[in-house]
Amino acid sequence: MNRVALRSVIGGLRNGGSYISPAVASRNDGVLGAFPWRRMMMSTSAQTTTSDEEEEKKKVNDSVVVSNYWGITRPKITREDGTEWPWNCFKPWETYQADTSIDLTKHHVPKTFQDKVAFRTVKFLRVLSDLYFKERHGCHAMMLETVAAVPGMVGGMVLHLKSLRKFEHSGGWIKALLEEAENERMHLMTVVELVKPVWHERLLVLAAQGVFFNAFFVLYLLSPRVAHRAVGYLEEEAVFSYTEYLKAIENGKIENVQAPAIAIDYWRLPKDATLHDVITVIRADEAHHRDVNHFASDIQFQGKELRDAPAPIGYH
Amino acid sequence: MNRVALRSVIGGLRNGGSYISPAVASRNDGVLGAFPWRRMMMSTSAQTTTSDEEEEKKKVNDSVVVSNYWGITRPKITREDGTEWPWNCFKPWETYQADTSIDLTKHHVPKTFQDKVAFRTVKFLRVLSDLYFKERHGCHAMMLETVAAVPGMVGGMVLHLKSLRKFEHSGGWIKALLEEAENERMHLMTVVELVKPVWHERLLVLAAQGVFFNAFFVLYLLSPRVAHRAVGYLEEEAVFSYTEYLKAIENGKIENVQAPAIAIDYWRLPKDATLHDVITVIRADEAHHRDVNHFASDIQFQGKELRDAPAPIGYH
Ligand SMILES: [Fe+2]
Ligand SMILES: [Fe+2]
Ligand SMILES: [Fe+2]
Ligand SMILES: [Fe+2]
Repeated sequence: MNRVALRSVIGGLRNGGSYISPAVASRNDGVLGAFPWRRMMMSTSAQTTTSDEEEEKKKVNDSVVVSNYWGITRPKITREDGTEWPWNCFKPWETYQADTSIDLTKHHVPKTFQDKVAFRTVKFLRVLSDLYFKERHGCHAMMLETVAAVPGMVGGMVLHLKSLRKFEHSGGWIKALLEEAENERMHLMTVVELVKPVWHERLLVLAAQGVFFNAFFVLYLLSPRVAHRAVGYLEEEAVFSYTEYLKAIENGKIENVQAPAIAIDYWRLPKDATLHDVITVIRADEAHHRDVNHFASDIQFQGKELRDAPAPIGYH
Repeated sequence: MNRVALRSVIGGLRNGGSYISPAVASRNDGVLGAFPWRRMMMSTSAQTTTSDEEEEKKKVNDSVVVSNYWGITRPKITREDGTEWPWNCFKPWETYQADTSIDLTKHHVPKTFQDKVAFRTVKFLRVLSDLYFKERHGCHAMMLETVAAVPGMVGGMVLHLKSLRKFEHSGGWIKALLEEAENERMHLMTVVELVKPVWHERLLVLAAQGVFFNAFFVLYLLSPRVAHRAVGYLEEEAVFSYTEYLKAIENGKIENVQAPAIAIDYWRLPKDATLHDVITVIRADEAHHRDVNHFASDIQFQGKELRDAPAPIGYH
């Protein structure tokens, strides 16, 4: 929403008119207009702010520290119950309820030589990480997630650049892969609330990202089919790891603490949700990543390109 | 929507029940549940498909060419008027009406040495491209857009990796920059409907992307502040270029043809929209990119990080 639009909201309030002005509706019709809920969420907050434009400006200046010559302001957003939305990295309309009715045992049996290499590599990394983390499921999850958010970003970027170079459509795959990356990053933001990384873990993350990003980038350029297959296998391992994590909670080896606030908002969990609930929805996400990536590999195994099959929608 | 959910839709239809089943609402609550419009759009199409599950499966197999072991299907989506949604790269809820009340003259006066270098470099590139394209505004726009979609992707990726490495939130900037990149790509998908690139233009795009992507990537690593400033200046030039384009249409030098179908859906233009309407909304987008990028540079000039100031929402 630009400065003009924000002024209109404030103006609309001052005039005692409806709480969303035509100017705002026009500017943000795509974002707000079609979704009464969004409109409500944004405007409810506008109602709670002071209707004095000068005060509003001052507030913006205080918080954002930069001049508002560029007219960039951001309306406060609220939850459905009217409380202020505390997250900048995701908005109410990007939250979802995970479908936890997943098949834990789904597996792609490696047939081609490349699939077997991908499978063996992932299994080898699994052994290494099991040796390193042992029963420390929280740390294990944390490290897993810093790596898991890389492939979607690499794939999305490569497909984006390809679309630009070849002047061709993407079939929605750019967005689907970037959304997967973002979903993984939200896993990390959640897990990090539970386990604070120490310095040598931070160092390990640095090294892992440096190696994995470049390796995966090269792999994706060479063979997106094998790259997606490898991610499919990584996700199979993630489903397994999170199942172990859940068992440890059920056995009482890990305390079933209160769910972090970010997880309650992101996955729309009940207010009294626990760690067990959080790990259950994360595991469901991983199962969906597994399916999407094996599917993406299958498409290419058939000699097609990703864009020949429309990407799944909202498939976390 | 996964296989289970799709089956539920079909089952719901078969049972003569309401056209959206609880299973779907649960799986997709974040995507569909909260937005009656989305729900309607998806389900309307489900209504038009046959309610015979086997036939549905066959259709899916025919179009997607891969086995549906992974349960990935995609419901048909419709426009508000019930006609089938023809685009995979963007969905009805990602469309918007551009706020064309922009300030064409906004400019950041370069003060620091680095800003001056960024400004001069962009101005130099402008002279080069003017020499090359002269009055061929369509080609000019096409080339501009293949390059314009790079910075948002680079910035988004770098911030994503940084967030993972440092276990810190992004303030919404990853998404804002990736959305900018996607918006630019949609500009390209629109312009390419008007001007078909010939082989030497395709070659030029290849070279330009290779050079620009890497140069911008290095620049973003070295100084995101200068990188955003440079994009701000590029966008100032884009606003100017599109203004020239509009003048050429107004003077009759370029025929004011019918708007491409993709543009009518993406910017929610009237059915009889023309090229002039399309260039007007694209120019508005560029003005908003200009503002966001100069704003992003300003934040960092104040010694803050991007994540200290929440990113704008839906600011195309
Ligand atoms: Fe994950
Ligand atoms: Fe995953
Ligand atoms: Fe553009
Ligand atoms: Fe732009």
